[in-house]
Amino acid sequence: MATVPMDFGSENTSPVHPAYVKAVVEANAGYATNFEAEPWTERALESLKGLFETDQLWAFTVSTGTAANAIAIGAMVPPYGSVLCHWDAHTMTDECGAPEMFSAGARQIALPGEHGRLSREALATYLREARIGVVHAIQPSIISLTNLTEAGTAYRPDDIAGLTEVARKSGLGVHMDGARFANAAAHVGATPAELSWKAGVEVLTLGTTKNGSFGAETIVAFTPKYNTSLAFLRKRSGHFAPKSRFLAAQVQAYVDDGLWLVNAKHANRAALRMAEGLSSIAGVSLVHPTEGNEVFASMPPSMSDALETAGCKFQRDWRLHPRHNRFVTSWATADEEIDCMLDVCARAAQPAS
Amino acid sequence: MATVPMDFGSENTSPVHPAYVKAVVEANAGYATNFEAEPWTERALESLKGLFETDQLWAFTVSTGTAANAIAIGAMVPPYGSVLCHWDAHTMTDECGAPEMFSAGARQIALPGEHGRLSREALATYLREARIGVVHAIQPSIISLTNLTEAGTAYRPDDIAGLTEVARKSGLGVHMDGARFANAAAHVGATPAELSWKAGVEVLTLGTTKNGSFGAETIVAFTPKYNTSLAFLRKRSGHFAPKSRFLAAQVQAYVDDGLWLVNAKHANRAALRMAEGLSSIAGVSLVHPTEGNEVFASMPPSMSDALETAGCKFQRDWRLHPRHNRFVTSWATADEEIDCMLDVCARAAQPAS
Amino acid sequence: MATVPMDFGSENTSPVHPAYVKAVVEANAGYATNFEAEPWTERALESLKGLFETDQLWAFTVSTGTAANAIAIGAMVPPYGSVLCHWDAHTMTDECGAPEMFSAGARQIALPGEHGRLSREALATYLREARIGVVHAIQPSIISLTNLTEAGTAYRPDDIAGLTEVARKSGLGVHMDGARFANAAAHVGATPAELSWKAGVEVLTLGTTKNGSFGAETIVAFTPKYNTSLAFLRKRSGHFAPKSRFLAAQVQAYVDDGLWLVNAKHANRAALRMAEGLSSIAGVSLVHPTEGNEVFASMPPSMSDALETAGCKFQRDWRLHPRHNRFVTSWATADEEIDCMLDVCARAAQPAS
Amino acid sequence: MATVPMDFGSENTSPVHPAYVKAVVEANAGYATNFEAEPWTERALESLKGLFETDQLWAFTVSTGTAANAIAIGAMVPPYGSVLCHWDAHTMTDECGAPEMFSAGARQIALPGEHGRLSREALATYLREARIGVVHAIQPSIISLTNLTEAGTAYRPDDIAGLTEVARKSGLGVHMDGARFANAAAHVGATPAELSWKAGVEVLTLGTTKNGSFGAETIVAFTPKYNTSLAFLRKRSGHFAPKSRFLAAQVQAYVDDGLWLVNAKHANRAALRMAEGLSSIAGVSLVHPTEGNEVFASMPPSMSDALETAGCKFQRDWRLHPRHNRFVTSWATADEEIDCMLDVCARAAQPAS
Repeated sequence: MATVPMDFGSENTSPVHPAYVKAVVEANAGYATNFEAEPWTERALESLKGLFETDQLWAFTVSTGTAANAIAIGAMVPPYGSVLCHWDAHTMTDECGAPEMFSAGARQIALPGEHGRLSREALATYLREARIGVVHAIQPSIISLTNLTEAGTAYRPDDIAGLTEVARKSGLGVHMDGARFANAAAHVGATPAELSWKAGVEVLTLGTTKNGSFGAETIVAFTPKYNTSLAFLRKRSGHFAPKSRFLAAQVQAYVDDGLWLVNAKHANRAALRMAEGLSSIAGVSLVHPTEGNEVFASMPPSMSDALETAGCKFQRDWRLHPRHNRFVTSWATADEEIDCMLDVCARAAQPAS
Repeated sequence: MATVPMDFGSENTSPVHPAYVKAVVEANAGYATNFEAEPWTERALESLKGLFETDQLWAFTVSTGTAANAIAIGAMVPPYGSVLCHWDAHTMTDECGAPEMFSAGARQIALPGEHGRLSREALATYLREARIGVVHAIQPSIISLTNLTEAGTAYRPDDIAGLTEVARKSGLGVHMDGARFANAAAHVGATPAELSWKAGVEVLTLGTTKNGSFGAETIVAFTPKYNTSLAFLRKRSGHFAPKSRFLAAQVQAYVDDGLWLVNAKHANRAALRMAEGLSSIAGVSLVHPTEGNEVFASMPPSMSDALETAGCKFQRDWRLHPRHNRFVTSWATADEEIDCMLDVCARAAQPAS
Repeated sequence: MATVPMDFGSENTSPVHPAYVKAVVEANAGYATNFEAEPWTERALESLKGLFETDQLWAFTVSTGTAANAIAIGAMVPPYGSVLCHWDAHTMTDECGAPEMFSAGARQIALPGEHGRLSREALATYLREARIGVVHAIQPSIISLTNLTEAGTAYRPDDIAGLTEVARKSGLGVHMDGARFANAAAHVGATPAELSWKAGVEVLTLGTTKNGSFGAETIVAFTPKYNTSLAFLRKRSGHFAPKSRFLAAQVQAYVDDGLWLVNAKHANRAALRMAEGLSSIAGVSLVHPTEGNEVFASMPPSMSDALETAGCKFQRDWRLHPRHNRFVTSWATADEEIDCMLDVCARAAQPAS
Repeated sequence: MATVPMDFGSENTSPVHPAYVKAVVEANAGYATNFEAEPWTERALESLKGLFETDQLWAFTVSTGTAANAIAIGAMVPPYGSVLCHWDAHTMTDECGAPEMFSAGARQIALPGEHGRLSREALATYLREARIGVVHAIQPSIISLTNLTEAGTAYRPDDIAGLTEVARKSGLGVHMDGARFANAAAHVGATPAELSWKAGVEVLTLGTTKNGSFGAETIVAFTPKYNTSLAFLRKRSGHFAPKSRFLAAQVQAYVDDGLWLVNAKHANRAALRMAEGLSSIAGVSLVHPTEGNEVFASMPPSMSDALETAGCKFQRDWRLHPRHNRFVTSWATADEEIDCMLDVCARAAQPAS
């Protein structure tokens, strides 16, 4: 049966979308000045301004999401500062201390919240107790929100505004890790502007990689106040690409013809199809609501075994929980892959019922 | 006449070579595990072992040369250590302190040497006076050689061995910045092995970007002793590419069919043609010997003006010297571009004579 | 009534013990070579070897406890590493990120445990789940134990050995913050050796400041493997005192005639007197067992008010708990101060009962 | 004859001046709040304001000169910035990269100048060529002047103003390392104000250690703009002393009754006596003008041998020059020590003539 890929390990295992391939190949048109002094970067910037409906926008493109987050955080947080984020944030769990390196030793503070969303109450409580201004204590400097969260849920504009309001009252900056920003927007039905600067976000890590590109992430700043630090830190960390046009071309492709939204909607629909299918299978329960392109399901180990036997790829025992699996969909996920996967699960459920 | 590009600003302004484009496009073949757990990375490693004629080789691919140098240096040098290099080294002049960042504050020590080559005597003198073991003084930890040098000259195996011998006597490690390693090998006529580990190099930054790729540099380690630091520092600095196959495919293409050497020889020949042509023009003199794909020429400002008027791209007033210009050739440089450029210079020389 | 100091804010508010004053004044005997090339440092080292019953001992004296902890941790932990410690550790709560700075961005991981003692189970669980060897994850590098803990409790040799055994199985180093090491030893009745290297501690931050000195802390290493890093990091962080003899003289005084133990026993007895007295007062309960020179008591706000009105100094609302107060005793605490303080509490309790 | 100390190795080898001893002992008067919330620190601040004739003054006291310099520089310079200083500056040669550590990797740029004084022309030239605003290049952020210089010469107010004017035109901050500030003031005959803020200095490292104290250095800021960074960096680097009163008492003693000037004048006079004496001895020549408490003399090795044999302490072969010796005087230097030393030199000169 398993003649279809069934690769739900990560968006990053899927092939690059043809539009991104085309953009990169076409950018290879003769000579072009290096280090962003070329028209591709300029056009990408204009496109981003259109997408986010503002001229107060500066962009710094790099090749990985870890880099984009670390540069943003490093530019926003002093060494004696801290980043308040959900305990499950990617910067905390999967970036090997990149934010600590780029900020010269700032601290990430893990705060709770249901289904990956930072709790407004937990944030307020922490800030109340944080000994702001006391030199013995690390000083809270920014909040960092992940949208989609690492639990595959989406913040709505109101959620974000509520958190940024608390943060700002204590003088904190606001960063958003938008590796799956498009998926969040697709689910919530809000515009990029509503999900970012209109809700108080100052700096957004905007990902195109999980949207199907070769690898291009843009630090989008909606305020000029971090620009000097962002520009120098990008260069200093080896993330200023000499052949910049090939990164810019991917950002351009992301915006053009709404590719970002088309791809995100496709992936989200696939995830929903999977989630709905799994819900009706005995012994399976969803761990988190499916609000983007990720499905977190609790299932019997025998069912996980069956999936692996069938060649299905996924993150088993996510965050070390012995029954929780993570399945990620992408622009490339076909309905038949979902159906095939559901079929394996359903069959495995039979003897267990 | 100037209907040909005449872009000698940098190899990085030239188009990507078709073989690299083909390799990247072909690597987009369905799904592949992320983070180097895919066959492209494995094959690239095998190819590098073949190219360098050794199994004692580990590779860490990243997207920029600054990153490759900084990760290598950061892994080799303690914070209280120093990097001994030529004053004109790229790590010193054009990487915004990346080695300092990645090593948590180690120091680069600028040493002299003619035509960009580190002087063995200067190195030995510095080491003799370096107060090794004294806690008040920064401790020399590695030498870092650039081949081609920033003056466009090449170290020969004997030059390298002479320097590494001095370094090792004082317990120092040896790094080589090989952004233009292929050009050096093409000029010198030595094998990659002879120019690296056989001459005492422990860690080599091997560049494919200036050889015509989209952007891929490999930290090639000929000893396992820095591997843990290299691996974690690469990830921690945001340089571990999720879609690793697209970097690996470029490294593979570099090695395959001797593309590295073909491209380097082409570029070197073009530079030599330019250098020979310039030598016969009144008022022009070569600042450094042409031993790779770079020509450093002293010429009257009026001639520089004429070149700019003709649309020629080059680095004017290199290192702020008012008459020195740098011209860089690449795999893409056509003879007629050189001839056109020489013609402009020759015409400009007339009235000046 | 309050004619006695009743200052229980910190040992550091009490006067310097006469033996330390004498030692420092006597060390001012004519000329002496700077930077530890003098006999005071040599003699202090010998004394420490005697105190700890081992020749495998190296010492690095500095002027503050934060410095001693940070240098020790910085020398033991790579930038991509982590320090596993109790959530209430001083390095975590009150050193403004010094360990992060000195390690170039390593992370402190807060683990639970009753009454300030790190839980062996929590440690084992964390290590089991820590993804050791995976480059995406921060790598556990050492455990850091505080003895006395920040809750005023003491680890016994068996407790320490149990924790270090777990740590070593995963290849971790072992650090102990011994700002109140003497108080722990006095309570437990174990020798300094039994509480340190015999139980698996590799590097001990040994404090004399809270024991009554002007300010001198020694990083005591029981293995030479961190010595190079310790020596350079101490200098590089500005903690290598030119007039070293005045620090060494304090360390010497700490050891001589068992001053460390005399002072610690005195302070511990005072704390016990306070704890016993408070236990019998209505409305007061001890938050943690009193195993050293610190008393943590829960009492009605009105009683805290009465103490403040009477001029008593203490840390009110410790760790932001609205009823918890911390009282610290020292070598200088007189019985009448305790009795006076208890009297205030007892009077304040009357109306509340 | 050599029954007198003849210790000219460093001011730091001399005994502590009685006034500093008295101040420290007297500060041990009962209880006092820790961490500068006590009257000694407040009084020292007032004294400094009086000494420098300004209310725009903030002070951060630490225990070593390396710490004071590193904290000042770390607070003033971003990681991608640079410190322009004389090649012979103490921060460059003898602090093991402390400025690099505290600034998270900024670079020190060595500039020339006769007799230890930074050349105004060299500074202007460097700034003209520094590629300010270009992300590939480290950005000049401050100048750091040492007064006395490491060559024992003194900057006059006009010298300083000339350099700070050049610095400010390019937007740079101004730091002064005043480990021997008192000696410079004593020689030049200018007030502390004239030698600091009136000449454009923003942050001064003011040393009392070489003036005869146990060890206390104050970062004196004449602008509030670095205060937050200074305060947090001091704590974070372990340099915020819990028993702060003992540092403050030394600063107070430095100011009181003009002790700073009395001690500096005494030391300067002793150096001048030595310099004049040496000048008349055959085979001896002064390397630098004697403008403070340091004498740099070139003498035959046989004369250096004779001094060593006589028990004289000094820095032989300073900066590795085979005939240059450094002799330092202090508040404690007696005329007979100078005369005894000169006598040894004169006798050694006889056979050589």
